[in-house]
Amino acid sequence: MVPRYSRPEMTAIWTPEARFRIWFEIEAHATDALADLGVVPKEAAEALWAWWRTDPAIDVPAIDAIEAVTKHDVIAFLTWVADNVGDQARFMHQGMTSSDVLDTCLAVQLARAADILLADLDALLAVLKRRAVEHKMTPTIGRSHGIHAEPVTFGLKLAQAYAEFDRCKTRLIAARADIATCAISGAVGTFANIDPSVEEHVAAKLGLSVEPVSTQVIPRDRHAMFFATLGVIASSIERLATEVRHLQRTEVLEAEEYFSPGQKGSSAMPHKRNPVLTENLTGLARMVRGYVTPALENVALWHERDISHSSVERYIGPDATITLDFALARLTGVIDKLLVYPERMDKNLNKMGGLVHSQRVLLALTQAGVSREDSYRLVQRNAMKVWESDGRLSLLELLKADPEVTATLSPAQLEEKFDLGYHLKHVDTIFARVFG
Amino acid sequence: MVPRYSRPEMTAIWTPEARFRIWFEIEAHATDALADLGVVPKEAAEALWAWWRTDPAIDVPAIDAIEAVTKHDVIAFLTWVADNVGDQARFMHQGMTSSDVLDTCLAVQLARAADILLADLDALLAVLKRRAVEHKMTPTIGRSHGIHAEPVTFGLKLAQAYAEFDRCKTRLIAARADIATCAISGAVGTFANIDPSVEEHVAAKLGLSVEPVSTQVIPRDRHAMFFATLGVIASSIERLATEVRHLQRTEVLEAEEYFSPGQKGSSAMPHKRNPVLTENLTGLARMVRGYVTPALENVALWHERDISHSSVERYIGPDATITLDFALARLTGVIDKLLVYPERMDKNLNKMGGLVHSQRVLLALTQAGVSREDSYRLVQRNAMKVWESDGRLSLLELLKADPEVTATLSPAQLEEKFDLGYHLKHVDTIFARVFG
Amino acid sequence: MVPRYSRPEMTAIWTPEARFRIWFEIEAHATDALADLGVVPKEAAEALWAWWRTDPAIDVPAIDAIEAVTKHDVIAFLTWVADNVGDQARFMHQGMTSSDVLDTCLAVQLARAADILLADLDALLAVLKRRAVEHKMTPTIGRSHGIHAEPVTFGLKLAQAYAEFDRCKTRLIAARADIATCAISGAVGTFANIDPSVEEHVAAKLGLSVEPVSTQVIPRDRHAMFFATLGVIASSIERLATEVRHLQRTEVLEAEEYFSPGQKGSSAMPHKRNPVLTENLTGLARMVRGYVTPALENVALWHERDISHSSVERYIGPDATITLDFALARLTGVIDKLLVYPERMDKNLNKMGGLVHSQRVLLALTQAGVSREDSYRLVQRNAMKVWESDGRLSLLELLKADPEVTATLSPAQLEEKFDLGYHLKHVDTIFARVFG
Amino acid sequence: MVPRYSRPEMTAIWTPEARFRIWFEIEAHATDALADLGVVPKEAAEALWAWWRTDPAIDVPAIDAIEAVTKHDVIAFLTWVADNVGDQARFMHQGMTSSDVLDTCLAVQLARAADILLADLDALLAVLKRRAVEHKMTPTIGRSHGIHAEPVTFGLKLAQAYAEFDRCKTRLIAARADIATCAISGAVGTFANIDPSVEEHVAAKLGLSVEPVSTQVIPRDRHAMFFATLGVIASSIERLATEVRHLQRTEVLEAEEYFSPGQKGSSAMPHKRNPVLTENLTGLARMVRGYVTPALENVALWHERDISHSSVERYIGPDATITLDFALARLTGVIDKLLVYPERMDKNLNKMGGLVHSQRVLLALTQAGVSREDSYRLVQRNAMKVWESDGRLSLLELLKADPEVTATLSPAQLEEKFDLGYHLKHVDTIFARVFG
Repeated sequence: MVPRYSRPEMTAIWTPEARFRIWFEIEAHATDALADLGVVPKEAAEALWAWWRTDPAIDVPAIDAIEAVTKHDVIAFLTWVADNVGDQARFMHQGMTSSDVLDTCLAVQLARAADILLADLDALLAVLKRRAVEHKMTPTIGRSHGIHAEPVTFGLKLAQAYAEFDRCKTRLIAARADIATCAISGAVGTFANIDPSVEEHVAAKLGLSVEPVSTQVIPRDRHAMFFATLGVIASSIERLATEVRHLQRTEVLEAEEYFSPGQKGSSAMPHKRNPVLTENLTGLARMVRGYVTPALENVALWHERDISHSSVERYIGPDATITLDFALARLTGVIDKLLVYPERMDKNLNKMGGLVHSQRVLLALTQAGVSREDSYRLVQRNAMKVWESDGRLSLLELLKADPEVTATLSPAQLEEKFDLGYHLKHVDTIFARVFG
Repeated sequence: MVPRYSRPEMTAIWTPEARFRIWFEIEAHATDALADLGVVPKEAAEALWAWWRTDPAIDVPAIDAIEAVTKHDVIAFLTWVADNVGDQARFMHQGMTSSDVLDTCLAVQLARAADILLADLDALLAVLKRRAVEHKMTPTIGRSHGIHAEPVTFGLKLAQAYAEFDRCKTRLIAARADIATCAISGAVGTFANIDPSVEEHVAAKLGLSVEPVSTQVIPRDRHAMFFATLGVIASSIERLATEVRHLQRTEVLEAEEYFSPGQKGSSAMPHKRNPVLTENLTGLARMVRGYVTPALENVALWHERDISHSSVERYIGPDATITLDFALARLTGVIDKLLVYPERMDKNLNKMGGLVHSQRVLLALTQAGVSREDSYRLVQRNAMKVWESDGRLSLLELLKADPEVTATLSPAQLEEKFDLGYHLKHVDTIFARVFG
Repeated sequence: MVPRYSRPEMTAIWTPEARFRIWFEIEAHATDALADLGVVPKEAAEALWAWWRTDPAIDVPAIDAIEAVTKHDVIAFLTWVADNVGDQARFMHQGMTSSDVLDTCLAVQLARAADILLADLDALLAVLKRRAVEHKMTPTIGRSHGIHAEPVTFGLKLAQAYAEFDRCKTRLIAARADIATCAISGAVGTFANIDPSVEEHVAAKLGLSVEPVSTQVIPRDRHAMFFATLGVIASSIERLATEVRHLQRTEVLEAEEYFSPGQKGSSAMPHKRNPVLTENLTGLARMVRGYVTPALENVALWHERDISHSSVERYIGPDATITLDFALARLTGVIDKLLVYPERMDKNLNKMGGLVHSQRVLLALTQAGVSREDSYRLVQRNAMKVWESDGRLSLLELLKADPEVTATLSPAQLEEKFDLGYHLKHVDTIFARVFG
Repeated sequence: MVPRYSRPEMTAIWTPEARFRIWFEIEAHATDALADLGVVPKEAAEALWAWWRTDPAIDVPAIDAIEAVTKHDVIAFLTWVADNVGDQARFMHQGMTSSDVLDTCLAVQLARAADILLADLDALLAVLKRRAVEHKMTPTIGRSHGIHAEPVTFGLKLAQAYAEFDRCKTRLIAARADIATCAISGAVGTFANIDPSVEEHVAAKLGLSVEPVSTQVIPRDRHAMFFATLGVIASSIERLATEVRHLQRTEVLEAEEYFSPGQKGSSAMPHKRNPVLTENLTGLARMVRGYVTPALENVALWHERDISHSSVERYIGPDATITLDFALARLTGVIDKLLVYPERMDKNLNKMGGLVHSQRVLLALTQAGVSREDSYRLVQRNAMKVWESDGRLSLLELLKADPEVTATLSPAQLEEKFDLGYHLKHVDTIFARVFG
């Protein structure tokens, strides 16, 4: 976890305090269920909750000190609770195994993290929608291979991003459901020492579903799917960030990250305004993607479990969720305050001397009966002249002056092909598809 | 693609012939729709289908030869079709861009590949279910950290695998839906030169959904999610393969891959029977996982598209699906014919002198009023003696001879704690959860 | 292996024929050494070589047919050789294990592949040097964050690439040495049935070093290092490819991939010249990088070996080396024929109204006694005006008109700061460092 | 960074204090060189060092507060230094760019981290050598595919690990040299505003080499190679850790991690002794490997630099080095105190009824003139009986009773083939190769 790429709400999920609080709730709910079954005294459960209602501080150093001796975190925690609650605490954890607590706790943490990420996505989607609508009809050049292609609108670019992050949301909802399961099934998942109804009770109380069949642990394919999904979301962040970086290039400059008054772009070059936020997002995306493979490698635990997954999750549980939360919020801020320059878009759009309309001419020639090959040749020979003039020549004028072209299309017909509105006539259709 | 790890049905999807066939269908369906709109003559579409009904062979070398000149694959294909169909073919591809064909084709290929993989999963699930039911009550030792823990059944191990691959199936269905979209939207996705209804028509004919907003291409977050899902499935394969490899170890030998008569395990050691199929699956899983990161890196294309994704997909489209298909089928075969040795399972289960029942004794002592700490100490001091005897001493006998233990639990009560049935009483419950 | 991204010399290394030829040489050299030790008859070795001198064709289908029965590749090969050579062949493979043959063969293949890659790097370095010298003094704008910074030369960009690929060469030489080892040490590496001198003989004959201690196999950390090194080289390829892609952008257009006469950039837009080769290289780099993780996962084989690495190497051995060979050759071609536009570089360099000289003014003010803070403020307020004018205003003129500036620096002193030669005065020094 | 997987010496390298101290040294050394050149007053450099000799505390919160306004870390630091040193500080950083400081600092940090890791490797190598010598002649079964193969010694296993980590050391020395370079070359690496001799001076003072050609930054292929090398070392750690995990399995139990008195293996099963340290190392290896791909993705920065690498390095700089340092130390501790059970090794070695000697019999038959095929058949039919008896039958006795065998080999000759010493006769040779 890198503090500068962290936000407090997400970070709070991963503190020792938060973890111990969830552990307690799992143990106390389980004790409730065990008491209902008559396995432990009702007083045991009541004693736990009575203490809990005093809102006790979690003494992390004390628990750590016990762990230093026992070398076992859950036993250390139970010992500390027993020290506080007293004799009734000995009924806690009856028939359970450490992983019941640890894995169910991780499920709660990841589900909470997913909830924050879903809220992040909602915020991003709202901003994307607002700015997409704002620039629904702002023309700009569409580019393939970094080369001018045909006109689009800036709103379409944002609508595309909206649709992409909306898919990310759907995926994250599925991934959240995948990891939000509860296992209270004992040492090897057989419920030998604990009734399945305890698991059902704890699951219901914590808003989790029941793990149908666990070993000692909740199977790690669930977590692998979760982190893989975060990796996909990170890649989508990188895509939009890369778009902004391109738009802010000196030669393009169709949009810029907001530049706050006190900010200095460079210690050496005072004129610089750098897309540092989106460059940063590109790097953060690499990190979140980097956590996918360790998560996939965690799946093949030995037999009913080995503990190799645990250290990995101590890193990637916090790091992947905290980083992605930060990145989504940063991206939302970038889009929210993005400086958009329609004039510059217009200037760039027109700089290639009308080359962006070449396909329409090609089609018109074909439809007028010229063979595909000949049409292509006619358009390309004029297009190439424009291209080599660096935009100083006009495609329309050259075509009007080409007898082989005008033999088929009149100057008026040619002019009609250079209409920007032609390209934007279906923007409404696309917006309706995306935003409903 | 490595031939020995390939099966013909999946490989067929990725041949040039198959690709060109799909390209033709896309073009011909689009021409139908264009004819309905009056953009091209009805005869043009009819000419295409008339030729197609002759079931023409796809002359791949001829198309390749044209591409060697044009350096453009779709133009090469269109030229070849025109050479065969004649003049009416010039109306093909009106208003479309190459990526409309390429990306929609890839969607068809990946959807077909997903269908095969789903069938593979169904076959694996069927085998897992059969063998799980067969060994539902075959006791075996559960292990955590590679160390004996408590009894489970071999059927439970397979039920766990069943549940895991059933989740994989759910994920793959979602991933299939994610990539099965059709884009016929032109050079930058604006439908400037083609009506959106063409896309809808082609999508319906090919069993795809409509891409709500494309750029020049279908966005690659869809494909990233697809390949990430394959990576998760591969990891689940590795898990079950690893289980078999462990069970076949000389010292464990609770199960073995089927060993066919003519097979030689080693050129040097004729007695060897090696779990080579599951070791192989472990390696194949590494490959399928290795394709996830390139797929994630493909998402951030520049602007409305760059073509960097294309080479990646030429590798991982075939390699990931062909390898996973082969791996699923191989795993199905392994489980189908797995030699299972219940006697050996029983022998291993009992070799630790009853240590696997230690937790029950611990619980009984606690429930009888001994403090948790003391109970733990009493059990552990006897358990350690058994452990150090390498299974020659019996935990039950030692406990019966320990006065501090018998002060609380009578010999009869102790014996009751060493009952295997105790551990298996909820197997029915778990099977009901998994298999319904 | 994707044919279109393959070159014949590298592909030839990985054919079954090539593999069987190396196998034979290993077996025959080993038989020589065994004959020298008196373990097998001299006639046995002579019989093998006598047959080999007839330059026999390798009958791959025949060997495959035997393997289909024995399910063991080396036994199948030995059987086929024996069928051809006759009775003397039974002395082959004495005391060896299959992995002795397989792993030593892989070492030979990877070493040969490395030799081709080293030659590829030499060719690339030669082209980079030639074009670097050609454009040693071609001024162009240096960019950080995609934003104009200060002048560099195009030759410096290529010199940087030269230095980077020269480092890659050093790394590959080390990686080649790492994998070029020979193991002929028997079933578990103890030389129980074969004298260490056999290994030494075979190693010397094949140009390999001796593996100091093998298990059944050559340890896979060697191969992991090899493939990781290929991943680094691929990343350097991506870097230079990305540079070209940026330079070819419509708005930048300082360089272009060579565009051959028959080539069509787009089926729809005839004016397009796309940097498809370097985009392709970006994708190929992703693939070569993707093979690093499977290679790393191959290291932790179980005990004296498991065979999980084998399937991985059947993919990545050919795929990583063939793809990288192709990519290096393609990059060499791109740089060799790169169209470079010095006029456009000059135009871009000057388009920001002299902003690139801002740091010099800043320094001059500081050195003339103005505080760092004040200098920064003075330069920035003028620089911002130029920036917002999109290059229409001139920084030099604005500074000359700013009394707070001219209070310290005279117009003549200011003009002196806008000298391009100032930025290029150490190009010779850098070239001397890089090219010696 | 996860505190429980961190050691103080390595962690100290990555604190803000340590970073600012290195920044100061870079700036002060550069000021020295600038003073020697007459660019800045000698007093400026003297003022910096005079302040430094007072051993000033680094006021991190103060620097952070300035950065919160300037949004630029180096400017914030310079401002804070100026606040402390006074007017002479304005000559600092003349002609330098932020990256000169940041990248050279990172080089110092990574070089220091490499030094710790090299010391870690030395400690591990020393322990491996000691225990290898201790168990040089401790026989144990060698296993391929997890199946008994032929005898080795436990010392050989450790000698193999020694040779592997010795290679890792060689690689790390090369990787350290790769990243230990100094760049003080200004905004785009042209030395426009600073003489190359400054770079040489700072490099010499900090024990770095000079970067031959930088852009704005030190090229990231160097760092990629560094982190890739850490990934290989991590994989070697996983290999040895996996070996220990296998050896500690209940059924194998040939070695065990040291089990300290107060330690509890399981909250539920008091008899358990789990290989948790080596399982943990397996997980940590996954993390260090996971950092390789982000480092590779960092190479392709845009033009003369973008800042996307920076966030990645804020994670993986500390995380990879701290985790690997911890893992190497943990592994050293595991090997140092590993409980080794030669009796159990002996018991396992003999449990298969002498099957491990089958290859010798095969060879003896072949050498006595029986065809390879027949020899194989004879040995295998007896070996299979032993195998199926689960070690209760003896291969030697069965062979003695097989007339087809005794027709060629006498009982005495057969007995001679079952000598363990035969397998260990070259252990000295191998040790001499490894340890010299």
